[in-house]
Amino acid sequence: MRYTTAVLVGWFVLAALGRADEGMWLLNEPPRKLLQDRYQFDLTDTWLEHAQKASIRFNNGGSGSFVSPNGLIVTNHHIGAEYLQKLSPKDKDYYRDGFYARTPADELKCGDLELNVLQSIEDVTARVNAAVKSGMKPAEAFAARRAVMAEIEKESLAKSGLRSDVVTLYQGGAYHLYRYKKYTDIRLVMAPEHDIAFFGGDTDNFEYPRFNLDICFFRAYEDGKPAQVRHYLKWSETGPAEGDLVFVTGHPGTTNRLETYAKLLHRRDATLPYTLARLRALEAAILQFSERGPEQRKMAGTDLHRVANARKAFSGQYEGLLNPAILAQKEKQEQELIAGGTNEPWQQIAEAQAKLRPFEREYYLLESGHAFYSELFGIARQLVRLTAELEKPNADRLREYRDSNLESLKFQLFSPAPIHAELEKAKLTASLTFLAENLGGAHPLVKDILAGKPPAARAAELVNGTKLFNPGERKKLADGGVKAVEASTDPMIRLARQIDPEARKLRKRYEDEVEEVERQAYAKIAEARFKALGRNVAPDATFTLRLAFGVVKGYPEDNQTIPHATTFGGAFARAEQQGNREPFELPKRWQDAKNKLDPATPFNFAATSDTIGGNSGSPVLNRAGELVGINFDRNRHGLVRNFVYTEVQARHVSVHSRGVLEALRRLYDADGLVRELTGK
Amino acid sequence: MRYTTAVLVGWFVLAALGRADEGMWLLNEPPRKLLQDRYQFDLTDTWLEHAQKASIRFNNGGSGSFVSPNGLIVTNHHIGAEYLQKLSPKDKDYYRDGFYARTPADELKCGDLELNVLQSIEDVTARVNAAVKSGMKPAEAFAARRAVMAEIEKESLAKSGLRSDVVTLYQGGAYHLYRYKKYTDIRLVMAPEHDIAFFGGDTDNFEYPRFNLDICFFRAYEDGKPAQVRHYLKWSETGPAEGDLVFVTGHPGTTNRLETYAKLLHRRDATLPYTLARLRALEAAILQFSERGPEQRKMAGTDLHRVANARKAFSGQYEGLLNPAILAQKEKQEQELIAGGTNEPWQQIAEAQAKLRPFEREYYLLESGHAFYSELFGIARQLVRLTAELEKPNADRLREYRDSNLESLKFQLFSPAPIHAELEKAKLTASLTFLAENLGGAHPLVKDILAGKPPAARAAELVNGTKLFNPGERKKLADGGVKAVEASTDPMIRLARQIDPEARKLRKRYEDEVEEVERQAYAKIAEARFKALGRNVAPDATFTLRLAFGVVKGYPEDNQTIPHATTFGGAFARAEQQGNREPFELPKRWQDAKNKLDPATPFNFAATSDTIGGNSGSPVLNRAGELVGINFDRNRHGLVRNFVYTEVQARHVSVHSRGVLEALRRLYDADGLVRELTGK
Repeated sequence: MRYTTAVLVGWFVLAALGRADEGMWLLNEPPRKLLQDRYQFDLTDTWLEHAQKASIRFNNGGSGSFVSPNGLIVTNHHIGAEYLQKLSPKDKDYYRDGFYARTPADELKCGDLELNVLQSIEDVTARVNAAVKSGMKPAEAFAARRAVMAEIEKESLAKSGLRSDVVTLYQGGAYHLYRYKKYTDIRLVMAPEHDIAFFGGDTDNFEYPRFNLDICFFRAYEDGKPAQVRHYLKWSETGPAEGDLVFVTGHPGTTNRLETYAKLLHRRDATLPYTLARLRALEAAILQFSERGPEQRKMAGTDLHRVANARKAFSGQYEGLLNPAILAQKEKQEQELIAGGTNEPWQQIAEAQAKLRPFEREYYLLESGHAFYSELFGIARQLVRLTAELEKPNADRLREYRDSNLESLKFQLFSPAPIHAELEKAKLTASLTFLAENLGGAHPLVKDILAGKPPAARAAELVNGTKLFNPGERKKLADGGVKAVEASTDPMIRLARQIDPEARKLRKRYEDEVEEVERQAYAKIAEARFKALGRNVAPDATFTLRLAFGVVKGYPEDNQTIPHATTFGGAFARAEQQGNREPFELPKRWQDAKNKLDPATPFNFAATSDTIGGNSGSPVLNRAGELVGINFDRNRHGLVRNFVYTEVQARHVSVHSRGVLEALRRLYDADGLVRELTGK
Repeated sequence: MRYTTAVLVGWFVLAALGRADEGMWLLNEPPRKLLQDRYQFDLTDTWLEHAQKASIRFNNGGSGSFVSPNGLIVTNHHIGAEYLQKLSPKDKDYYRDGFYARTPADELKCGDLELNVLQSIEDVTARVNAAVKSGMKPAEAFAARRAVMAEIEKESLAKSGLRSDVVTLYQGGAYHLYRYKKYTDIRLVMAPEHDIAFFGGDTDNFEYPRFNLDICFFRAYEDGKPAQVRHYLKWSETGPAEGDLVFVTGHPGTTNRLETYAKLLHRRDATLPYTLARLRALEAAILQFSERGPEQRKMAGTDLHRVANARKAFSGQYEGLLNPAILAQKEKQEQELIAGGTNEPWQQIAEAQAKLRPFEREYYLLESGHAFYSELFGIARQLVRLTAELEKPNADRLREYRDSNLESLKFQLFSPAPIHAELEKAKLTASLTFLAENLGGAHPLVKDILAGKPPAARAAELVNGTKLFNPGERKKLADGGVKAVEASTDPMIRLARQIDPEARKLRKRYEDEVEEVERQAYAKIAEARFKALGRNVAPDATFTLRLAFGVVKGYPEDNQTIPHATTFGGAFARAEQQGNREPFELPKRWQDAKNKLDPATPFNFAATSDTIGGNSGSPVLNRAGELVGINFDRNRHGLVRNFVYTEVQARHVSVHSRGVLEALRRLYDADGLVRELTGK
């Protein structure tokens, strides 16, 4: 009863903060009533199951969907980018120039891309919580929970044959078991040129109006043949109109909306400044590398975009947390939830931040690997740990080495994708330098890691000396187990081994003093919130499938109205206004065919649905469950959505389904693809 | 006598570290014997006086020289860049496209450029030191020294009519009075296109081989007419050959070679990581701004280059200090100098670093203005301080407001050069964000400065509200004195006023606890060094005129020999190799005239002379005192020269005098200029 006041006042504030279209909803707790009340939309089980099973998680960090019964998939060009680069032979650049397989035989197999399609969700909260006995110390509680989760997953995998992951929701308030169908034979079908997929480049990233054909088609194969799928999205030939209700089914990565005020202050004053400094250091180094010449530019393309994109996103988050209005609202909302009750869990989270502060940077640098921004180091780390962890029982292993995850992990680890030595050196030099900047040149760890050399010399020594470029070498070490790893003289393996005790110590400290404390405290906060507000608040994003909804809609800015959609004609106008120079240079194909295109064709559109990073490539659906767009970005007003939802100006941005068809027909001579999409 | 051992061992190490061509020598303590012994060159008083009086300091941070009796001056394009931008009318872009005044009437006046030509040097060490009585507390000593320096300068100005600056040498080991002839009516004569002046852009900055026509011509005027100068450099039509002895007379800005080991460790572990983080934050922000469109690109050009250049230079310094070999040599050298004597002054400097550490960032952010990277803020700060300081006697003022400096200060402060509001906002947003990142959002100063707004909103409020764009407004406030400034409601003035007490407190703390302590300790160290090694070690650079010498010479790298000079043909080859894309796109003028040019014409050359930032635009002279080149860069091997001189691979890079004449004749149709340079 002590929550009564909180209920009333809390709702009011939540209503003001989190406006009507807020929510990245769990598929097993969908917002039926909200949709009925606000949009008179009846969210049926059939609609939901169809959307769920047509939606795809890209395990390299994005989303997508099936768009034909023959396993055809659409996602973003920037999600496919990594594979466009990896699949390009020496004399071709599919990332820059695009690709189209006219026949199935021309489709190119991605060596290490795993896609997941969610089949079912089961609430296992009670079982997970039952494993943690009252009176357990944090370290014991952490181990007990990890053990039961590994057990649940192993059982589920054995029973269903499906990839099984226990997902922590509400920062510890609930645990759900997600079962996925996995696809690991994925082939590249079609991509447009980089210059139209990413028209406006990093300049227009997180901006709107936009003019991007940010699409890429893949196909899932099973047993060497195109996968036959029942649930795929019908491609809408008209696309959405202004004011339409739309849905997004994708995999938002991370939000922090339910975090406590103390946690947000910690983010503002410790985590984000560190993160921004790190990203800027990497960006400057990769930019410098990519400017050495066309070859280097090609190598570094996806890294550069990834880092620049993250830098921009985190800058927006930081700016949001420096906005006293946002923080004041967060504080008020928290006080209302506490009102009259105990503030103990909030206090515990505040104390965990104080404990984290003195070792946070070391933890990120060593355990998260920020000191070693290098694929080769990542591989060495995996080999050192995999072999060590496999000697333990499933329940006792570091979570990523649980039995149920091994297949996916090895699929990555033994990937035949090429690794570029020069780029590795540049990235490793930058991150080793960043390590020294943070801990100081006299720090024992820095001295150990640099081994008496300046960062560039040390990076060169490591990269020149390692044999881990070769997947066969990796397999040999993995198969040879701890003994082989310990006997190895590979410098990268030796470095990973050398720092492993310290890195594990930091991880344990983090788990015991921060993660477990937070998890237990958040569980109590979640309970308080459920009591006060019911299940009307969706959990923070966890890179699992969520349903968002919103309205196709423009917005006001600087006394103008930004329209809900852009057009092909607008792309030509923007290119001209920017002097047709990079990153505003349209591909030759577009320039040459200008007269063949109807300038009024819709290109991109904006909507209010609640999305975040990870939603890239998500299908945008209409009431009928048809695909009307492919989400690819937010505008900069949406950058604060990590902390608060707002729809005054914030929008997500999608490629219009009609624009895609037009481009495929008139510019890319891709009639086969169009026929498959339209079924005509 | 206790230095005897040190003499012997010290020399040996110095000889190994600081090889034969090391030295940025004082013009009044020139290395005659060294030049005689090593190169059989007789450095006469006549030669020296001529070189001194033909050499020019650009007060915006570079060097140059007179090259005709009619006041014609040559420097670098990147030194003139600021004025090429400021002087461009709305519809022209001289920075990008170049400029040539065919007649004196076409020459364009720079509003706020002051050039200095050194006339004489007087050793005033005894008088300065006599003002500091033994037993004075550091604060008293600091004030007494400041007072006597202001007095000396004021007397000298009154007597000679020349700009008079007391320069602190050997970090406090000596004080010399420099007297300059000032030129303040400087007009732009000629500049090539940016794309050839800075061919290779930031990519090739600090690299070699290079192909840059990094030159810009100005003319000094007096009484509205071209200045008639007796000392100017004859332009060599042949330029230098491999192996030639050459001299550089310019204004190296800062080196740290005589700093103690403890000071270098402090730089490595505190100052440089902070500096790098700051430069990267600014670079990312300015880059993002300049990518908005061609107009913004034009506005931000010089800022972007300045920041990217500094980031690269400091990265090289940091890499140098992470090299244990360099630090070990420094430590050894120091121990040898101490050997047998007292280590007290070294200890005092180490203690000063410990004192500096807790407030160093605040000091830089507030007092050095790193939190406010904005011309408008700089103006506001000057107005607030100038009016306050003028109420005090000359001897008691902050050093920059001493009577003898006021004319130069006001010349800058009332400059009519345009200030771009949008760029100001972007820079201010970035630096306010950096402030918050460093001190945390809860810091009282951050809260005061941001005044309840996120950085971008606060920056917009400040820039939109200020009237300081207008030089008339500045004059009004300066003339109105403290009363006018206090009554002002201008938001930028209010901000500068608001933080001034705290900023002054930090400055005083720095002066008393660090600067004065260091100065006294370095004076003792200098004395020890003079006793041990004589005057055979030049003082660290102080942006005053120095003489360096070296040999035109290639160097080995990766089993190749990098040749001493590049050619016009090489520029075309490099452009082609890089796909003729920015920053490797040659100007149309060059592309069109390729066949008119002799590809063997020498373009840039490398030499061993000891230079550093600030030497940009310095004349390179031959034995006859003729100008054979214009220095514009170092290679990356030279980036450690802040701490140690090396000539194994390190080179400075200059434009070849013959290449310049060829380009002016064949490409720029600048016969008038050629006639003036060659006297033919």
